[in-house]
Formats: sequence, structure tokens, C-alpha cells
Amino acid sequence: MTVFDEELQHLKEKLLRMGSLVEDAIKHSIQSLVERDNALAQKVIDNDRLVNTLDVEIDEESIRLIALRQPKAVDLRFITMAMKITTDLERMGDLAVNIAERALELNQEPVLKPYIDIPRMREIAQGMIRDALDAFVRKDKKLATEVIMRDDEVDDLKHEVLQELAFFMAQDPSTVFRAMKVSFVAQYLERIADHATNIAEMVIYLVEGKIIRHTVLPSDLQM
Amino acid sequence: MTVFDEELQHLKEKLLRMGSLVEDAIKHSIQSLVERDNALAQKVIDNDRLVNTLDVEIDEESIRLIALRQPKAVDLRFITMAMKITTDLERMGDLAVNIAERALELNQEPVLKPYIDIPRMREIAQGMIRDALDAFVRKDKKLATEVIMRDDEVDDLKHEVLQELAFFMAQDPSTVFRAMKVSFVAQYLERIADHATNIAEMVIYLVEGKIIRHTVLPSDLQM
Repeated sequence: MTVFDEELQHLKEKLLRMGSLVEDAIKHSIQSLVERDNALAQKVIDNDRLVNTLDVEIDEESIRLIALRQPKAVDLRFITMAMKITTDLERMGDLAVNIAERALELNQEPVLKPYIDIPRMREIAQGMIRDALDAFVRKDKKLATEVIMRDDEVDDLKHEVLQELAFFMAQDPSTVFRAMKVSFVAQYLERIADHATNIAEMVIYLVEGKIIRHTVLPSDLQM
Repeated sequence: MTVFDEELQHLKEKLLRMGSLVEDAIKHSIQSLVERDNALAQKVIDNDRLVNTLDVEIDEESIRLIALRQPKAVDLRFITMAMKITTDLERMGDLAVNIAERALELNQEPVLKPYIDIPRMREIAQGMIRDALDAFVRKDKKLATEVIMRDDEVDDLKHEVLQELAFFMAQDPSTVFRAMKVSFVAQYLERIADHATNIAEMVIYLVEGKIIRHTVLPSDLQM
């Protein structure tokens, strides 16, 4: 293994660590909502700085690698894509913080209804992140394609959540503020899944050297 | 002017062209809502492929430049940042499409209320994009800082819009579906302003070589 291979390996590990922190943040943010656990929500908010630190570190390390090692072809593509991926991961971390913030607000009020579809959305979105990053470091096109397919499930679930919330609001005006906040959570999860889809699309770009980004319609076109 | 300078200039121009297309998309998407102009909304949706084409072209050109010219220090930083910026711009284009989609739906129904704050949000967000990109190509830290400050105005306006919509829904259940769609538009605009803020933060990173990203709290923490 050359020094460059080791450096590349190190970069991959950092990216996976960042992904794993983001996964935890998303999981805990939804858990803090479902279990009305304010301490956990606060932990998600506080821990976001760890994600941000890794974002900066990966950028710095990537730039240093490019400058020192002058990688070519697929390695150069891999490193530049890693820098683009951190942007998506960092955004997902922010979205987990947004969910935790809404949890802190919603936990002060009576429960609107048991959360069923939202934990399901969380589960799919979290799996999409893990698989998209695995696909990236292993350059696994098949897995990346599967991730992209799963985005529709998240969109369908979001659609159901929003329909149901609209029904609540129309039936009982006292639910409006809470229902809107729950609708935000569903939208944050949908955006998280979109970011995972972005990453998966970059994997296919990396492997094929051609673009499938933008051949799939943006998934959040429907309500 | 060296060949490399010319290539760099070309990259900047492409990035500005992409920014200008995104600005138009955002402007027209809100116009299609306010003026109930379905043809214009459809145009925004159709034109998104131009934004996507530029996104791919800028990535390809950046990778080619790095491989061929092996740029160092600030030039390398500039080119890698350009690739990260296209991710933000491409996302803004998608959000303009989302606005246009909501416009097509809302235009089929009676007007909920005249749009006042939303066009104002659009105006600020659009200015933020233009200035963030200008700050990037001119490496203008002062302008970038101003862009970041303006994000609060957009957040405040969004907050007002959402409060007002919640009031509508609570008063009259028949407005729920429309009000939710309008609330989505306000949130899309807020996300567009967030992306512009991201770009401005990258400018400061580029100029100072240090990170202010993540020293500012994510702006969409409040409802």
C-alpha cells in the first residue's frame, strides 16, 4: 500500500465517520420527538459541531491531497466528489438539528397523534445515507442505484403524512400550530433522503464517468 | 494573461451564467405564483435542464483544470469551491422548480390572500445569490459578510408568513390545503437564502483560508 493509498483510505474513513455521526443525529432527533426526550434533542443540537468539524477537516485534507499527490483520473474524481459529499452530509446534520428544535417545541404541547409514518421515513432515510456512503467508498454502482429507487418510498410517506396533517388541521383548528411543526419534520426527512440520493448519483458518476444526476426528476416535486 | 488564467476566467463566467439562470428561475417561479401565470411556471420547470447542464459542465471543467494545470494554493481552493458551489446552485434550481409546481397547483384555486411578504423574500434571496457569486469571483470578503447578515431578514419574513398562514388555517379550515402549499413556498425561499449563505461562507473560507462556516448557527433553527 503506497502512502497515497493510505491517505485515501484515511479520507474514506473520515467520510464514513462523518456519515455515521449524521446517521446518529437523525436517529436521535426523531427519537427525541417520539419519546419526548428533551435531553436527547439538546444532545443532537450540541453534537452538530462534531459534524461541522469533520466537514472542514475533510475539505482541508482533500485539498492537501490534491496539491501534494496530484492524483489523476478516478482518484481525482473520487477526492473532489468527497468534498461535494461533505456538503450534503453537513446539510443533513443541520436538518437533524432542525428536527431536534421542532421536537423541543412539540414536546411542550399535548401529543397530536402517535408517530408512525415519521419513524418509518427516518428508518428508510437513515439506511439510504449508510448505503450511499458505502456505495461511494466501494464504488458500488448497483447499491447506489438501489438507494436512488428508495427515495420514492420516502416521498410517498411524506405525502401521506402531509395529507393526514391537513385533515387534522381542517377538523380541529387548535391543532394547526402543532400539525405545521410535524409537517416540517416530515419535510426535513424528505430533504435528508434527497441528499442521500444526491450522494448515490455521484457514485454512479464516479463509476461510469458519466452523469445520471439530473436524469431523475427532483423527487420533491409533489407535495 | 496565461492560458490557465483564461481557463479560470472561463470557469468563473460559467459559474456566473449558472447563477444568473438560477436567479431567473426563482424570479419567474414567484412571478408565476403572484400573477397566476401557468405558462411561466411551466417554463421554469422546463428550463431547469439548462441549470443541470451547467452544473455538470462546471464539474467536468474543474476536474480537467485540476488534472491538467495542477493549480496550487488559492487557485486550487477556488476551483474546488466552485465545484461545491454548483451543488448549492443546482439545489436552488430544484427549489425554483418546486415553487413553480406549487404555483401550478395554487393557480387552480381561489387566491388565499395577496402575496406581499413572499415577493419580498424572493427579492432578498435573489440579491443574496447575485452578491454571493460576485463576492466569490471577486474574492470580496466584505460583500460575502453582508450576504450572510441578510439571511436573518429572510428568516424573519418566513416566520411572519407562517404565523399568518397558521392564523388563516385556524380561522377557516377550507384554507388548509392552500395555506400549506403557500407555507411550502416560503420554506423553499428560505432554503434558497440558506444556500446563498453557504456560498458566502465559502468565500470567506477562500479569502481567509480559515473557516467561518459553522460559526454562524444554521439560520433555519426557528420555525
